[in-house]
Amino acid sequence: MGIGDDAAVFHPAGAREYWAFSTDMLLEDVDFRKEWSGPRQLGHKALAVNLSDLAAMGVRPRFHTVSLGIPEGISQRWIKDFYQGMANLAERHRVILVGGDLSHSTHSIHISVAILGESNHRKVVYRSGGNPGDFLYVTGILGRSASGLSLLRRGVVEGDSPAEREALAWHRTPEPRCEVGSWLAAHGFARAMIDLSDGLSMDLRRLVRESGTGAEIYSSALPVFEHSRAWGCDPLELGFYGGEDYELLFSVPPERVSTLERHYPQKYPRISRIGRLIRKPGLIVLMEQPGARRGRLPDLGFDHFRIPSTSPKAATRTQPRKKHRESR
Amino acid sequence: MGIGDDAAVFHPAGAREYWAFSTDMLLEDVDFRKEWSGPRQLGHKALAVNLSDLAAMGVRPRFHTVSLGIPEGISQRWIKDFYQGMANLAERHRVILVGGDLSHSTHSIHISVAILGESNHRKVVYRSGGNPGDFLYVTGILGRSASGLSLLRRGVVEGDSPAEREALAWHRTPEPRCEVGSWLAAHGFARAMIDLSDGLSMDLRRLVRESGTGAEIYSSALPVFEHSRAWGCDPLELGFYGGEDYELLFSVPPERVSTLERHYPQKYPRISRIGRLIRKPGLIVLMEQPGARRGRLPDLGFDHFRIPSTSPKAATRTQPRKKHRESR
Repeated sequence: MGIGDDAAVFHPAGAREYWAFSTDMLLEDVDFRKEWSGPRQLGHKALAVNLSDLAAMGVRPRFHTVSLGIPEGISQRWIKDFYQGMANLAERHRVILVGGDLSHSTHSIHISVAILGESNHRKVVYRSGGNPGDFLYVTGILGRSASGLSLLRRGVVEGDSPAEREALAWHRTPEPRCEVGSWLAAHGFARAMIDLSDGLSMDLRRLVRESGTGAEIYSSALPVFEHSRAWGCDPLELGFYGGEDYELLFSVPPERVSTLERHYPQKYPRISRIGRLIRKPGLIVLMEQPGARRGRLPDLGFDHFRIPSTSPKAATRTQPRKKHRESR
Repeated sequence: MGIGDDAAVFHPAGAREYWAFSTDMLLEDVDFRKEWSGPRQLGHKALAVNLSDLAAMGVRPRFHTVSLGIPEGISQRWIKDFYQGMANLAERHRVILVGGDLSHSTHSIHISVAILGESNHRKVVYRSGGNPGDFLYVTGILGRSASGLSLLRRGVVEGDSPAEREALAWHRTPEPRCEVGSWLAAHGFARAMIDLSDGLSMDLRRLVRESGTGAEIYSSALPVFEHSRAWGCDPLELGFYGGEDYELLFSVPPERVSTLERHYPQKYPRISRIGRLIRKPGLIVLMEQPGARRGRLPDLGFDHFRIPSTSPKAATRTQPRKKHRESR
């Protein structure tokens, strides 16, 4: 089950729970730049993107592997720090490293993580579970990671203000929403869910396609990263099209909305109600607020943030993270 | 269980069987050369090395993922053929592709496969299960893959004789011994088992170390690839030190030997009794045949076959496949 979802779901014969299996690869100068992220941050992020895949299905992470390919010139210290960064995040999420490879590569760093998780009470949430009328929510803040990336692109590596440092930190070491995803699934609040790896615009399209619905989105309700205006970004644009926030987007049946908002734990990152699923398949309608005049959300998708450069060195994330899962 | 073994083994709560989880990465110009192997062959081999990890534990493969990073200049056709080669082998072993990634890379091809398998009647074989007195067996032929690699290194890509073609084929598309491994485990013949990815010398050392034993090996009993003499190889040397055969090495308790040899299915690749486990931990004794004069097996290990070259292009397999599992 769930092939083409954030993770593949299977049921080991006789097991109490469903299990989910997923993998994600990070390549130097495509997904990250060594100059922009230290080894601890990369170790964190490589695991985080995989944890996020499981979070999006409400599944608890249990075991992971990591294969690391490193070119000459990378120090033992770098490698040690990479594993340490990964181990720190793994410990917090109680996921255990059970295997992998360390090998030489010819040019650049390759990181590949595979992960296994276990459901709670057999409750797994797919992209396809949404129905017209469901309310749409997101966790946290949208466009924060892209705000950090935009700083890095103009050479700001440390950050002067708390906002700059926050954006940089979220880009380098995003926090996967495992606990929230698990809680939403276990209590039956989330009917469809996906993690925002490629930006709201693209990932919302995936969720509505799998659910066979459309969606209306209230732009005034989007929890955007306002601070980025200070360094020339358009927070709303990044909120729609910026990738790698690893927040969760989920749909909640109307009759569950008030219970959710009443019982949602304070200690969790805030959630924002940003729209609803509608009947018309594939249509995404943008409005200032519920009932306001309608516009169509331009499908700028990922390419909008592509860096127009022929040098591969200049690019990070020139491709959607979830591309392959869909094309196959 | 089994961390540091060919795969990590876990028991999903309530499940009838144990499950095994493993991953292996193949990097261009380290593990393979595009000029030497076509995309179908690479697709086959990338899955085969992972299947072999499960075979070595007697576990049946069930699900796998593949992440593929490709630089510019690789055609759609190449990619399609890669997946086709992988799919063909997957179908024969009834393992299902359930996820993965396809992304651009900057310089070279990266392939990362993760695999999940399920035990038969909870019988899993580890490296550590051997006891002094157990007989040692191998499947198939040793040094066949290295014989093929030596042809490629001198520019023989097609092969003139059946022997040359056989060696090339085994190097490019080795057959993982899943069926044999599963049968040996299910019937309780194999007490310790490992797959020969880095050559008998190195992998035997791993098996005896984990089992807390030593071993004596009868060189006259080694099923070596004699044909390679025709192109200047030393078959016995390749039998000991050549990697990537993906045959199985396993230990059988003395009281089970005659039953094994009587009941071993004819349709399976032949097995050869090549030695015994002995009491002295870590000692590996080489003799012409049982009872003959003893010598020590020089621990040439993997470096013996390292290509002395500064060009990364010239090297394939300059490092053991199982290195990381042990160093961590």
